[in-house]
Amino acid sequence: MQKITISAQTIDTHYAVLNRIGGLGDQPQDGFSRAAYSDEETAAMQYIEQQAMQAGLTTRWDAIGNLCVETKQDHADWVECGSHVDTVSQGGNFDGLAGVVAGLVAIIACKDLKRAHGLRLRVWRGEESASFGITSIGAYAAFGQLSASHLEASYDGQSLAQAMLAQDAQPHTIQAGKASINQHELDHILAHIELHIEQGIVLEKEGVDIGIVSGIRASARFWVSLEGEFDHSGATPMGTKYRKDSHLALAYILVGLDQLLKEYQSKTPQLDLVQTIGHINNHAEHNAQKQATAQHAISKVSGYAYFSFEVRSCDDQLRQRYLEEAKAFIKKTAATFVVQANIQTISQSTGVPKLDAQLQQQSQHICDAFGYRHRSLASGAWHDAALVAQQQQSRLKNVPVAMIFIPCLKGKSHAPEEFSSSQQIAKGASVLATLMQQGHE
Amino acid sequence: MQKITISAQTIDTHYAVLNRIGGLGDQPQDGFSRAAYSDEETAAMQYIEQQAMQAGLTTRWDAIGNLCVETKQDHADWVECGSHVDTVSQGGNFDGLAGVVAGLVAIIACKDLKRAHGLRLRVWRGEESASFGITSIGAYAAFGQLSASHLEASYDGQSLAQAMLAQDAQPHTIQAGKASINQHELDHILAHIELHIEQGIVLEKEGVDIGIVSGIRASARFWVSLEGEFDHSGATPMGTKYRKDSHLALAYILVGLDQLLKEYQSKTPQLDLVQTIGHINNHAEHNAQKQATAQHAISKVSGYAYFSFEVRSCDDQLRQRYLEEAKAFIKKTAATFVVQANIQTISQSTGVPKLDAQLQQQSQHICDAFGYRHRSLASGAWHDAALVAQQQQSRLKNVPVAMIFIPCLKGKSHAPEEFSSSQQIAKGASVLATLMQQGHE
Repeated sequence: MQKITISAQTIDTHYAVLNRIGGLGDQPQDGFSRAAYSDEETAAMQYIEQQAMQAGLTTRWDAIGNLCVETKQDHADWVECGSHVDTVSQGGNFDGLAGVVAGLVAIIACKDLKRAHGLRLRVWRGEESASFGITSIGAYAAFGQLSASHLEASYDGQSLAQAMLAQDAQPHTIQAGKASINQHELDHILAHIELHIEQGIVLEKEGVDIGIVSGIRASARFWVSLEGEFDHSGATPMGTKYRKDSHLALAYILVGLDQLLKEYQSKTPQLDLVQTIGHINNHAEHNAQKQATAQHAISKVSGYAYFSFEVRSCDDQLRQRYLEEAKAFIKKTAATFVVQANIQTISQSTGVPKLDAQLQQQSQHICDAFGYRHRSLASGAWHDAALVAQQQQSRLKNVPVAMIFIPCLKGKSHAPEEFSSSQQIAKGASVLATLMQQGHE
Repeated sequence: MQKITISAQTIDTHYAVLNRIGGLGDQPQDGFSRAAYSDEETAAMQYIEQQAMQAGLTTRWDAIGNLCVETKQDHADWVECGSHVDTVSQGGNFDGLAGVVAGLVAIIACKDLKRAHGLRLRVWRGEESASFGITSIGAYAAFGQLSASHLEASYDGQSLAQAMLAQDAQPHTIQAGKASINQHELDHILAHIELHIEQGIVLEKEGVDIGIVSGIRASARFWVSLEGEFDHSGATPMGTKYRKDSHLALAYILVGLDQLLKEYQSKTPQLDLVQTIGHINNHAEHNAQKQATAQHAISKVSGYAYFSFEVRSCDDQLRQRYLEEAKAFIKKTAATFVVQANIQTISQSTGVPKLDAQLQQQSQHICDAFGYRHRSLASGAWHDAALVAQQQQSRLKNVPVAMIFIPCLKGKSHAPEEFSSSQQIAKGASVLATLMQQGHE
């Protein structure tokens, strides 16, 4: 086996520059905000482009604004890696970026070696849903899976279409329902590999260097709004005969959802299902649009409340079954408080129960060759690679996809404390480089 | 009995002007925002001043910015009425204002009649806590019961001190701990009467014209904040081993508080205790100050949440006992979610278990003389009159206080739908005028 070793120093060199793009303070620990289709996201991508060009690689931007870095030799088939550089608001600098940096250095390390296939890095736009409420904007659009209505999603005072135009991307591609990756390009992807931080604490807790991902959880996301009636808090007697209290309904709904999930867990050990209430009444865009959100007072019974509701699982059927029960519970509980519940779907993605078995086996062998501790695990978070894994090639097989996880400190992610060391990234990049050089065996 | 009858038309005349001060749209139904110490509050008070002057009454402003309207004859003793003209944000035009208009027309109707006492209307500043988080600012300050720290409370980008100065009031009176009503003035109040809309639905439901108030509930108000930890929603397993979920803790706390109150109610029928969660995560000032409030995302476990917690009762001992149990429950529940609860007192006022018995009896007789349906009831809401009732005169008795309630549509208050008809206000004003003319028998 031809092992390609990446040094921590190589990782450090790139991070020294990238730590200054979209940072919220003088120190990386102050956190990062690089929204989808922001100047900061573009600046980070331009740094990757420039480094690739300096290393003698080819670069191109697709119509969606995704960046492709490719080796120059003339190959029919390609082994790809990919990830993203955008962050959630006040996030860290490793979710996404670690995979892009690892991919860049892996391809640079391999570029002059002999191979039967070309190497490609895809830097996707806007993987985080935090900006426009849409996950993996760049990847979905590249495969022609976004529609015109998505262009109206807004963030920070502008629509997605406006934000795209500001970064020289072409929203009309989405409007026209066109993919930026055509069937020919898709058919010639031998393998697609994404390196990513785990965003969980399993690897760190077990002292493992590399996680080899078995499957990817997808998410279903909803806004649930509760319309009751604003009333004077002192003069309106307790009880649903007098009060239509949105806050009380909200509390009972959230406790009930927690107990519903526990009921599922008690029936199935190791149940692959998590749910999260990320927002309660505090989504800036929503509050700017809905007048009722400003009517609250200490001395008023609440007439309006809302929350975000997210459910994740690799198992789409399980998730669907759970969601049906959860939605019925929300409606029923709201009604007992004389409150009207509206459930609006934000997004529903499909999970990937099993990533490519052959690539997982190769990854294990490579880790063993390096002497890295490794284990198999499911990804709790959605990744661009999941969408790639769902793409069908003309030979009626899906694109072979692998994911390599590296540990992150205390499992923290989507927060300024997010951290993986250069040593940890370098180990992952070494596995990535070696696997890309091998290709799909 | 000398009955003084006020016509609905007289009420209409004043409302025709006052409906245009601080209104949020062309129609009164669009709601009103007249904050404490705002230009709109002052404008409404100036209208009252001008009408009083035109009617040949004396007017003066105290150092706090409260307005006094008085009959001109030289009397040693006074029978007062009073209320306020400020509103909650997006409130209605009857909570407070109805009492001020009724008081003005009552005094005008009586001004030339023979009496052994003078008549006075007090228009208090800022009764609503919605602006600066302090209830009855004008009345508390007038009795020297606010302190320098209250002047730092902020609303709409300015401190209370700044807002007072902008309306020609003198914050240094509060700073110096001085009352604007001295002991001599206090000692010579024979009776103080506030007419107010019920802000509840008891009178309307029972078809009653006049509510004769037996006691006034006071409130205790708190901010409860919950500090957990922000985490990735997909990769952080469920359960308190991994998640420190502020939103989940909040939901369990609110449901537990609701059940605690129900427990109290089940032990004591007709329990005089209400609690309300007015804010969850949506207080503009708080959100502007606390960075963590902007860190939420659909895809994050919540690391920070807060809510306002209000408890009201006439019975201070009952309220205190309940609050101790409630606070212990909040702390204990937060701890089970590995979340830190902080409870900050906003205000704690003292209730008035019994208003003046003699004035209540006179009110009943007056209602009977007019043929108005009446009933006795406790006030669920706090009023300026409650504070007056707590003031001690030199003869070591409290100021004799009465309150007259009139029905309001569907019991709605603190909302644009708040409404009492001119006929309803006129009936209340007739009782008020007759009672003021009688004095304390």
